[in-house]
Amino acid sequence: MSEEGQDRELLQQPWVPVFLGGMRLLAKSSFGDAEYWLLLSDMQNMWEEKVDTSVIQDRAQELNKRLRAPVDAFFSHLCTVARPLLAGEVSSELEDNREPPVISVHSRPERLTLQLKSELAGVPFYWEFRCVQSSVPVVCSQLVRPLLAVSRVLQKQVMELAAQLSRKDVEIQDYRESGAVLSRERLQTEEFDLHRYRETFVTQVLPKVCAVQDCFGFDATLQDLYAAVTAQETKHQQKGLVIR
Amino acid sequence: MSEEGQDRELLQQPWVPVFLGGMRLLAKSSFGDAEYWLLLSDMQNMWEEKVDTSVIQDRAQELNKRLRAPVDAFFSHLCTVARPLLAGEVSSELEDNREPPVISVHSRPERLTLQLKSELAGVPFYWEFRCVQSSVPVVCSQLVRPLLAVSRVLQKQVMELAAQLSRKDVEIQDYRESGAVLSRERLQTEEFDLHRYRETFVTQVLPKVCAVQDCFGFDATLQDLYAAVTAQETKHQQKGLVIR
Repeated sequence: MSEEGQDRELLQQPWVPVFLGGMRLLAKSSFGDAEYWLLLSDMQNMWEEKVDTSVIQDRAQELNKRLRAPVDAFFSHLCTVARPLLAGEVSSELEDNREPPVISVHSRPERLTLQLKSELAGVPFYWEFRCVQSSVPVVCSQLVRPLLAVSRVLQKQVMELAAQLSRKDVEIQDYRESGAVLSRERLQTEEFDLHRYRETFVTQVLPKVCAVQDCFGFDATLQDLYAAVTAQETKHQQKGLVIR
Repeated sequence: MSEEGQDRELLQQPWVPVFLGGMRLLAKSSFGDAEYWLLLSDMQNMWEEKVDTSVIQDRAQELNKRLRAPVDAFFSHLCTVARPLLAGEVSSELEDNREPPVISVHSRPERLTLQLKSELAGVPFYWEFRCVQSSVPVVCSQLVRPLLAVSRVLQKQVMELAAQLSRKDVEIQDYRESGAVLSRERLQTEEFDLHRYRETFVTQVLPKVCAVQDCFGFDATLQDLYAAVTAQETKHQQKGLVIR
């Protein structure tokens, strides 16, 4: 895949909340034939590693002195072990009776290392994802711009739903004026007022939403929206349109 | 003000869309007695400058060889000129018959310089905001985390409004079942279905919202929410709570 194609593919993938070596992180990754690109963030910082076949070969040899397997063989093993972890899944694809991989994470502002110990053909297989701090433009492209777009899209939804509520209020008002009466009083709703709603929301609901804010706040709905807005962004880029 | 207090103050300020020297940027700034902190972003990158009195004094002398005014005098002039520009306002506070300041912006990935030429006591006064690229943690703190929180808050609003729509549908259904008829057919609304709404939204509305995506997408409502969520974040920090 071309570098640009890889960029696009990774951009459109959702950020997945993962729990690795005791650390809560957001992850996205793209595994190729014998290459990968990994992004990790704890929302205070962001790190990444992008490596090709030759780096993979050298590192495997460095970490596993006695390894004699060809790169295809151990890379496909690495994928089987690492992909479910980085996708937030419990690894169920491992063969029976196999020990789950052992993970440890070492993070500093400039560097995050993810150490993985698994078992390949009955012997231990060691791997390290050696991530360095991402650049500010990558953080902007992978988090800032999509999150602003998601916010704008959700804001639009709020406006549309508020308009639908007002239309329902008009319909309800018309029934009431024609003398219609509810069979049960508790079905009666209050007239919706967006301004009042927002005021109450900010003082009463917002503090609770913010209090539980964490990486895991990137829930399934937000991830779907993230994927949808980044798909739009890459579509515009392909057309050569400026959407800044 | 303590450094921590300054951090908190700047975090809670909204990002203001500005148009400086032909560039669309988001800005936030905090001006003290004879010190300032400025953040600028074009959503591809982020730059900042934080300077104290001695730097201001030296730079003023460097750029204005014949300047003899004390630092208080020209700093208050600089505030009068720069603050409205960085707040996205047309400078109306300038004294009558005064030429508006001339601005030029030079940006590179690592550096953004904002040159300002104004008039102080009848002679030209030059200033340069010499911003360097922000660190990834600053980008995370000033944009990523607040935008994720804003998204979650808006997502909560969408869920709440959807629930209100369903309650109104139940009320409407009850009127209809009691035989009530609308005075005008066009007042009739369709039953709301969140799942169907989202599907239609993603294919029909979302592409339009994303097409006009730019810095200026940070509109007043989003800015209010930004201020509200960052106020919560700093409140939690002060209490020593972890809200990552």
